[in-house]
Amino acid sequence: MYTIGVDIGGMSVKVGLVDERGVIIANNRAKTEKEPEKMVEILAGQINNLLKENNLTVKDVNGIGIGCPGTITGATGVIEYANNLGWHKVPLGEMLKKYIDVEVRISNDANVAALGEAIYGVAKDYNSAIMFTLGTGVGGGIILDKKLYEGNESKGAELGHTTLVLDGEECTCGRKGCIEAYVSATALIRQTKQAMEQNKESKMWEFVGGDINKVDGRTAFETAKLGDKSAELVRDNYIKYLAESMMNMFNIFRPEAFILGGGVSAQGEYLTSRLKDYCEVRHYGYQGTPKVEILIATLGNDAGIIGAAALLK
Amino acid sequence: MYTIGVDIGGMSVKVGLVDERGVIIANNRAKTEKEPEKMVEILAGQINNLLKENNLTVKDVNGIGIGCPGTITGATGVIEYANNLGWHKVPLGEMLKKYIDVEVRISNDANVAALGEAIYGVAKDYNSAIMFTLGTGVGGGIILDKKLYEGNESKGAELGHTTLVLDGEECTCGRKGCIEAYVSATALIRQTKQAMEQNKESKMWEFVGGDINKVDGRTAFETAKLGDKSAELVRDNYIKYLAESMMNMFNIFRPEAFILGGGVSAQGEYLTSRLKDYCEVRHYGYQGTPKVEILIATLGNDAGIIGAAALLK
Repeated sequence: MYTIGVDIGGMSVKVGLVDERGVIIANNRAKTEKEPEKMVEILAGQINNLLKENNLTVKDVNGIGIGCPGTITGATGVIEYANNLGWHKVPLGEMLKKYIDVEVRISNDANVAALGEAIYGVAKDYNSAIMFTLGTGVGGGIILDKKLYEGNESKGAELGHTTLVLDGEECTCGRKGCIEAYVSATALIRQTKQAMEQNKESKMWEFVGGDINKVDGRTAFETAKLGDKSAELVRDNYIKYLAESMMNMFNIFRPEAFILGGGVSAQGEYLTSRLKDYCEVRHYGYQGTPKVEILIATLGNDAGIIGAAALLK
Repeated sequence: MYTIGVDIGGMSVKVGLVDERGVIIANNRAKTEKEPEKMVEILAGQINNLLKENNLTVKDVNGIGIGCPGTITGATGVIEYANNLGWHKVPLGEMLKKYIDVEVRISNDANVAALGEAIYGVAKDYNSAIMFTLGTGVGGGIILDKKLYEGNESKGAELGHTTLVLDGEECTCGRKGCIEAYVSATALIRQTKQAMEQNKESKMWEFVGGDINKVDGRTAFETAKLGDKSAELVRDNYIKYLAESMMNMFNIFRPEAFILGGGVSAQGEYLTSRLKDYCEVRHYGYQGTPKVEILIATLGNDAGIIGAAALLK
């Protein structure tokens, strides 16, 4: 039996035929359409093509899993609001079923990424795992007993929108001082630029060819590796922000594993070793508690498709 | 069928015979013993007396539920560490079974209080609920799908030990700026005393008869009701700390209900109406999300026994 995994992004819609081991057997991609009706028609075509090309029919799949940015009500399959797509109250599940009558499950992209890692990826040997995706924002995913926890109306798991610094930096959500405002790639870029403004001698300037607009999530980390003091300070503060955010989640969930995904997580061991050191000294957040494994997501660009397919597990 | 509920506190051990509706049919109480062996012997006696007095035998009970302060490993029934009791690695479940051979389940007092409210108390009509007990510290309880979530080795649900203010007030746990350091009764007393020191004209002085050592968790709230500006400021700051802490939990869990227990929760509607107003303006933490009901715990002094019995549900 196969599952169709769909990864809807702001630029493209990726569809994959996923087997029971979580391996993508075949896949295709189309441009994202802003018009929901048209998008669903194209998506149905993508799925049917994939089945046909692999000599399969609808009877060979147990369902379609979809990961999508934005606010989603899982139970009804409605995309309530997706800023990237310009979608508002789109009953995606129902619309797609008119073309292909199988079970459709939908969740947001951060949830789906976490589920994929928990079922098929780096956390597959752990029962409970919490994930942060460190990108433009901070997505959160909660896996308890191998199942996605989404909260009432699927509106929970907004881990990035919890306070780290009361009355701190403005967050995109309207609150202040959220985790997202300190540990997203966007926040890291802001922190890097501030440090550069304060030290015109920093090697970070060289790293971006003198153009502060070229700063990205790698600038401080890569320059810290060259021994630049300002960059090291940005890195160490970022580690502190992230480790304290993670320890909050440790104390709440005491998961077996914590997964880091998104752009910043590409620092891999360089990042996790520092996070582990920080957490170790502080008993991983609370005295007498078990360690939490800190892992880097491994599904990469396939996380969306594989995680979406995992919704049918 | 009945359940034995046991509430172990620093001063006394309360045992109750609880029926299937969560009603305490009979109960007794003994002084807490620091010596575990002796304590268990007394506890077994309390339970046997309760059964005998009600013409019941061990066959009429489905098990013993125990709520206890400290760090507990639920799976093994071991009290890892209970500061109040001076207990360290006490295999309470195993020890008690030598006297009475029925199923024994143990969890910490905050978890048990939350479970009691969720099964038999104010949140019995809700599927998911998060609880803060606002006492000397801040206990946390997580109820998902009517079940207690305790985390790996039962070491999660330490909701009070998550950061509200990075590098803020020292917390008992060793971290800084935890929720507990801002919204416990202890923190409220500290905030009240600070305001009194800053304003010697405040009516709060009158309320405590000029003796700052008589300040308790009611001082600021009760004096605010008389229109004292300093007291109102303490109250409003406290509401902000608590509401922001709660909104963190809303964004993480999006529970159907939030339960407040412990000393400060005695303010009832005076407290909840202000919390609701604060959260309402801020969309209960995140835009487009469902409201979370804010409830006051109703089981009061019986919460320990009833909640402990609920562990067998």
